[in-house]
Amino acid sequence: MPDSLSNISEKTGMPPGSLIHVGNILETESIISIIDYGKEHIEELTVQSIEDILQYKEKDTVTWVNIEGLRNIELIESIGQTFNIHSLVLEDILNTHQRPKFEEYDDHIYIVLKGLSLESDKFTVNYEQISILAFNNFVFTFKERNDNLFRPLKKRLKNNKGRFRGMGSDYLTYAIIDMIVDQNFILLDSLEEFVDSVEDELLINPTSETLATIQRIKRELIYVRKSTSPLRELVSAILRSETQIIHEKTHIYFRDVYDHVLRITEAIETYRDMLSGLLDIYISSVSNKMNEVMKVLTVFASIFIPLTFIAGIYGMNFEYMPELKWKWAYPTLWAAFIVVPLVLITYFKKKKWL
Amino acid sequence: MPDSLSNISEKTGMPPGSLIHVGNILETESIISIIDYGKEHIEELTVQSIEDILQYKEKDTVTWVNIEGLRNIELIESIGQTFNIHSLVLEDILNTHQRPKFEEYDDHIYIVLKGLSLESDKFTVNYEQISILAFNNFVFTFKERNDNLFRPLKKRLKNNKGRFRGMGSDYLTYAIIDMIVDQNFILLDSLEEFVDSVEDELLINPTSETLATIQRIKRELIYVRKSTSPLRELVSAILRSETQIIHEKTHIYFRDVYDHVLRITEAIETYRDMLSGLLDIYISSVSNKMNEVMKVLTVFASIFIPLTFIAGIYGMNFEYMPELKWKWAYPTLWAAFIVVPLVLITYFKKKKWL
Amino acid sequence: MPDSLSNISEKTGMPPGSLIHVGNILETESIISIIDYGKEHIEELTVQSIEDILQYKEKDTVTWVNIEGLRNIELIESIGQTFNIHSLVLEDILNTHQRPKFEEYDDHIYIVLKGLSLESDKFTVNYEQISILAFNNFVFTFKERNDNLFRPLKKRLKNNKGRFRGMGSDYLTYAIIDMIVDQNFILLDSLEEFVDSVEDELLINPTSETLATIQRIKRELIYVRKSTSPLRELVSAILRSETQIIHEKTHIYFRDVYDHVLRITEAIETYRDMLSGLLDIYISSVSNKMNEVMKVLTVFASIFIPLTFIAGIYGMNFEYMPELKWKWAYPTLWAAFIVVPLVLITYFKKKKWL
Amino acid sequence: MPDSLSNISEKTGMPPGSLIHVGNILETESIISIIDYGKEHIEELTVQSIEDILQYKEKDTVTWVNIEGLRNIELIESIGQTFNIHSLVLEDILNTHQRPKFEEYDDHIYIVLKGLSLESDKFTVNYEQISILAFNNFVFTFKERNDNLFRPLKKRLKNNKGRFRGMGSDYLTYAIIDMIVDQNFILLDSLEEFVDSVEDELLINPTSETLATIQRIKRELIYVRKSTSPLRELVSAILRSETQIIHEKTHIYFRDVYDHVLRITEAIETYRDMLSGLLDIYISSVSNKMNEVMKVLTVFASIFIPLTFIAGIYGMNFEYMPELKWKWAYPTLWAAFIVVPLVLITYFKKKKWL
Amino acid sequence: MPDSLSNISEKTGMPPGSLIHVGNILETESIISIIDYGKEHIEELTVQSIEDILQYKEKDTVTWVNIEGLRNIELIESIGQTFNIHSLVLEDILNTHQRPKFEEYDDHIYIVLKGLSLESDKFTVNYEQISILAFNNFVFTFKERNDNLFRPLKKRLKNNKGRFRGMGSDYLTYAIIDMIVDQNFILLDSLEEFVDSVEDELLINPTSETLATIQRIKRELIYVRKSTSPLRELVSAILRSETQIIHEKTHIYFRDVYDHVLRITEAIETYRDMLSGLLDIYISSVSNKMNEVMKVLTVFASIFIPLTFIAGIYGMNFEYMPELKWKWAYPTLWAAFIVVPLVLITYFKKKKWL
Repeated sequence: MPDSLSNISEKTGMPPGSLIHVGNILETESIISIIDYGKEHIEELTVQSIEDILQYKEKDTVTWVNIEGLRNIELIESIGQTFNIHSLVLEDILNTHQRPKFEEYDDHIYIVLKGLSLESDKFTVNYEQISILAFNNFVFTFKERNDNLFRPLKKRLKNNKGRFRGMGSDYLTYAIIDMIVDQNFILLDSLEEFVDSVEDELLINPTSETLATIQRIKRELIYVRKSTSPLRELVSAILRSETQIIHEKTHIYFRDVYDHVLRITEAIETYRDMLSGLLDIYISSVSNKMNEVMKVLTVFASIFIPLTFIAGIYGMNFEYMPELKWKWAYPTLWAAFIVVPLVLITYFKKKKWL
Repeated sequence: MPDSLSNISEKTGMPPGSLIHVGNILETESIISIIDYGKEHIEELTVQSIEDILQYKEKDTVTWVNIEGLRNIELIESIGQTFNIHSLVLEDILNTHQRPKFEEYDDHIYIVLKGLSLESDKFTVNYEQISILAFNNFVFTFKERNDNLFRPLKKRLKNNKGRFRGMGSDYLTYAIIDMIVDQNFILLDSLEEFVDSVEDELLINPTSETLATIQRIKRELIYVRKSTSPLRELVSAILRSETQIIHEKTHIYFRDVYDHVLRITEAIETYRDMLSGLLDIYISSVSNKMNEVMKVLTVFASIFIPLTFIAGIYGMNFEYMPELKWKWAYPTLWAAFIVVPLVLITYFKKKKWL
Repeated sequence: MPDSLSNISEKTGMPPGSLIHVGNILETESIISIIDYGKEHIEELTVQSIEDILQYKEKDTVTWVNIEGLRNIELIESIGQTFNIHSLVLEDILNTHQRPKFEEYDDHIYIVLKGLSLESDKFTVNYEQISILAFNNFVFTFKERNDNLFRPLKKRLKNNKGRFRGMGSDYLTYAIIDMIVDQNFILLDSLEEFVDSVEDELLINPTSETLATIQRIKRELIYVRKSTSPLRELVSAILRSETQIIHEKTHIYFRDVYDHVLRITEAIETYRDMLSGLLDIYISSVSNKMNEVMKVLTVFASIFIPLTFIAGIYGMNFEYMPELKWKWAYPTLWAAFIVVPLVLITYFKKKKWL
Repeated sequence: MPDSLSNISEKTGMPPGSLIHVGNILETESIISIIDYGKEHIEELTVQSIEDILQYKEKDTVTWVNIEGLRNIELIESIGQTFNIHSLVLEDILNTHQRPKFEEYDDHIYIVLKGLSLESDKFTVNYEQISILAFNNFVFTFKERNDNLFRPLKKRLKNNKGRFRGMGSDYLTYAIIDMIVDQNFILLDSLEEFVDSVEDELLINPTSETLATIQRIKRELIYVRKSTSPLRELVSAILRSETQIIHEKTHIYFRDVYDHVLRITEAIETYRDMLSGLLDIYISSVSNKMNEVMKVLTVFASIFIPLTFIAGIYGMNFEYMPELKWKWAYPTLWAAFIVVPLVLITYFKKKKWL
Repeated sequence: MPDSLSNISEKTGMPPGSLIHVGNILETESIISIIDYGKEHIEELTVQSIEDILQYKEKDTVTWVNIEGLRNIELIESIGQTFNIHSLVLEDILNTHQRPKFEEYDDHIYIVLKGLSLESDKFTVNYEQISILAFNNFVFTFKERNDNLFRPLKKRLKNNKGRFRGMGSDYLTYAIIDMIVDQNFILLDSLEEFVDSVEDELLINPTSETLATIQRIKRELIYVRKSTSPLRELVSAILRSETQIIHEKTHIYFRDVYDHVLRITEAIETYRDMLSGLLDIYISSVSNKMNEVMKVLTVFASIFIPLTFIAGIYGMNFEYMPELKWKWAYPTLWAAFIVVPLVLITYFKKKKWL
């Protein structure tokens, strides 16, 4: 379960633009890493303060500043002042309950996304808010966690001289979004395995735990959908926007992301449909089991209750019960004890109860 | 349950613009409080009549008149005459069954909202209608109740010299709406706790009371949704409108409110989905319990009914029952009494009934 | 149940514009009443024929002709000829299965509505089709029934000199529509009482009759929704239209009607949701009751079937049953008869079955 | 069940415009009948070949050629060549699995509809595809069957000199569509009767056959909806189109058809809702019946099982059972046999089980 | 089940445009076949490499290059370079998890589709991704499998001199899409047969396997819908686009494809509705069966338990039981043993339980 539905009221009543980190505060020290690159060079370093960033501001090269950990509010505040960012945007960066969205400003764009990752082998999803601030030659990324999410991207930057480094900050923005969106495919693969295993379980031995698992995945899926469904609108807003930050020739890449988002959205709907189908199977199989139990009860009761009655008759103590003295009465009765069940069993078999 | 669905027909057949307070009439004496502020000064006072308001009308400063309690119809009528407000608007202020909406007039805008607050620890929501009439330098707010809803706002006005006081009546309007909208987050937090506790209850010991609670929250949620879902349209109508009251530079704040409204709307949908899931779990667990009861019955009946029959056989009084005289008959039968149940229990265990 | 779904095929195969009264023909004699008013005067009379109407045609004052009862087809035909109305409109006036709609013509507008009223204390709704033909200074209303629906309106016209009489036929049109729309609020109030009483019944003693009532209201609500949902579109069509009949300054009143229509539509959806919720409660409570019955059966059977078996053992007639001769056997068995049930009851109590 | 879902793959892999009759080939010989009319004259005849039609082509009068039976492919091919019709249109005329649609061409329009009629007293619907090709003075209709569907129309043409004959081919097109659309009302009336009778059956004696009937009507309704729902779009496409064939003044008649289509569409949705309601009642009544059965079982078992146990006790053969010798033991026991059931019955009555 | 939901994460983290075949890699050797045709000639050949294609590039005739099997990545890369195709398009051709889509480029269009075919007599669908790259005189098709899908098309090209060969590459594109779309009709026919057979099975003998089959088809239908529903948008995008590749006069053919797509989409929705109906029938019939079982149990228990009790009474060993000595007691009891069941059976018959 994401934390995005809890503690959302922490800031109620505060003035807009109050810079307070809202959300599950992760005890991560803020780490600032910079990659500056152009066609011919690349430079990677980790810095401590805003001053170290400033020197890249006027340069012609593309500079990517990645900030992991949101505890250092002063840092974000000073970035806001230096780069002239609206206080509401700074507030959104720090409040990790944002809905994915895209906003244009005069000389920059602001994008918020949710990075989804699986925690363990149980289908539990971790949500991380990732904010992107893209300027003409500058890209800031703000992450909650200190992890290796962007490592393959950095590797590509370092190796792949040609295309990547030759393109501007808009292509970098695309590459970051693409990376985050494609993370969802890993999630969906894992989800599919889970659904399959639950389905097998349902066919072999459905327990109330299976039901709980189905419900848990359904619930998790509600959250996943909440994080991914605004992406469609987000990417198409980027494509529609007239911002100077995203150049015309990068649009084809964003359209590619848009296709991926469509596929993810559809896959989630598909899994929702499937889980509903599994729920139907579960209810149906419980009902079937009850039916089976009832049949056993009915068969036992229907066979032995009449027999017990017959035995009860000849257990009566009347003085005048002529049968009691007949020599073949007892064996005859035994014959009845054998024939009656056989008849009933045949009847039940005909009714497909056995 | 809100009162908004009851007594709605009170006014049927009356001429439009009839000034009658429709709704649960709260016995609150109308209290008029004024805050007048500018960059450099702030003044707060409580007045008795419309005349005390008039002196602020021509001033350049922003004046916020907050009226709590709607019993004083003459007051509202005279405001209407002095400030040239359409009688239908006055009617809407007094009729507390309004749907949240936004209306533009020549020199003012009219906004109706529902303020939601929790009554007690049970999830019961109180609904209060709040009307906002915003002029260029004047903002009226009409509340049904006499409470401290706006206290944090007043505090910010008094302390925070810089931004707030330097901005116009449109920013004040924003701040009021933001305050009311953000109230919903408190509600949602409480709702989440409730849903969690119900879920725990369902897993431990589901009773028909749990069901009643689920239904009650579902019903309450219908009303909450009714009060919040028009907000989306309301805020976007403000953003789209060409009124002179809301200035271009305040739009960014309203867009922020719009984001909050989206988050609230989505959270409500999420909770609705969850409650439906809980209902499924409830029905499923009742069905499981029935199943368990049936199994116990079946096991008992299936084991003892055949045994009783066997005992019944040797309770018969036939003269020629050779077994009755055999010395080992009785112990043999006891062996049967032990073996038969063991066989059946093994069989039921194999079928996973025990 | 409205008649609007029955007899709808009566006219199939007839030429368009055939003037035949389709619908449940009410045996009401057509009554023509006229109200002619201006700022300074008002005149009310009942006339017999079309000629009596003609004299008002050229006058400057507003004339409202209300025709109750649709049996007099010649009358409607002659109105059609005199006022130059399309034969399809005349057909629609007479065919009382119309969907609420708004149509503009060169010098008049045509509006069809459904007037809803409650028949008795059971929630049974009566539907009456009301057609409005509004000219510049002339308004025709055609009603199926002869009742007092418009009485409050006439009263207001007679008393309230100022506003009402000073405004044109468009305001009269508004007032009529407003009257009909607000009738629905009475219906909704009654509906709410009904839903509440059904809910109480469900909690105390749900019977299959309760289910039938829920289904009946649900069904009635389907018809009510059918009659009210097109109103939204109707009123917004009036607001969008460029007809000369409805003046700009009357728009604000129609917007007010639009708000009422929205509230009615939403309330109906809310009640539909609630009725579905009640159905869930019903099914759940039936299931709970079954569960309870099963538990009683299981408890009785599980306690007494083993005991009967024990008693059966010592009812056997074997010669060698040493226990039969023991002195304490019988009291010991009685002890068993008391202990076994106690153990089982404790077990069932632990399982929360008792 | 319509044939429109079967055999749809017959033509897969064929070139477009292949003239093959696809659908249930009805063994109807193609019959060509012509009605040629103007203000002053009318002429009706049956012809054998395309040559007989040609003479009317250049005339100023309106000519309606009605072709019943689609086996004569050469005929349709030669009409196509003579009147310059695209081969895809000819293909659509012959392939009776078309979705209702409207297409404009340079000098003609093409309309496909489904004519629905009831087969017998069981609710079974027959579907017939009717194609209309309207030119300026020429209208072709292509029907699958040889029936009297158009007879009332022909009658009106012959009798009603004035309006009908004075209008052009667009009015004829309207009249044909109106006729086909209004057929649906007959269907809906019959459907209503059916739903009512099923509802009565449900209340008196619900059997699994009732369920089958509900399912069958639901299924039939799916097909009916498939045939009628595109009509809305079709008629509004006619109204929007800028074709020269449909004149401005005929639009009012098509708007009338549009209203009818809306009413039909809404009625079908209403019946779908009702059938779902009936299904709920059915399931609920089955559940109620099971409940009743369970109660009887529980009452019988709960009363007699304890009594049998008591009787069993005194059927034991212990030597030391002092009660056996008491004189009043047997009558006392009889008293118990009467009192215990009375107590239990009172208990069950209190629980509302009896 | 399609492979399109599995392995979708294979490429996550790779740069866009990486040419790697993603999907179930079929071990098909890439086969390149060329058909070059004009009004007067046609030429068909199989080639090994890109060089053999180049000679046709400058020709005026239409050239159709069909590539079956996607293992030969170099081939596709060299086509990309020679024909100046964006690397993202090449990536999409190789990644067989695409959603059907249409993209326009300067001198070519790119279309991705799913070819659906049935695997065996069980309703299992095979999905094949087919990419179409259409230039002015050149059409590439990329298929995953080596099969005869396009054989009828090639036949038509060879035989049907007139129309087909006289038209350009846009008509060829249409013909290919039409072929693939019409494949779905075969699928739907087979689906209908399946649904019918399942329905028969449900009426005769519903087993839990029937349920499994319904669920399996439902699931398969989810995938089929995923592959076909984007087609509507795809074809209408082609019709809306302003590309030079598709000429105005070919639009009528694409509109025909659009109609087919609509019919397919509607048919799938219809089958989904039907399958839900079947599920209802299944659940209902299971419930009915349970009801029947319960009735048998109740009848047996209710008849024999009281009788056993009566027999139990006279099995008691009291000394003072006067009835035991009555001569007619035993026959009288037998009469009771016969009368009591008859009374109960009559009662149950009246209740319609037998």
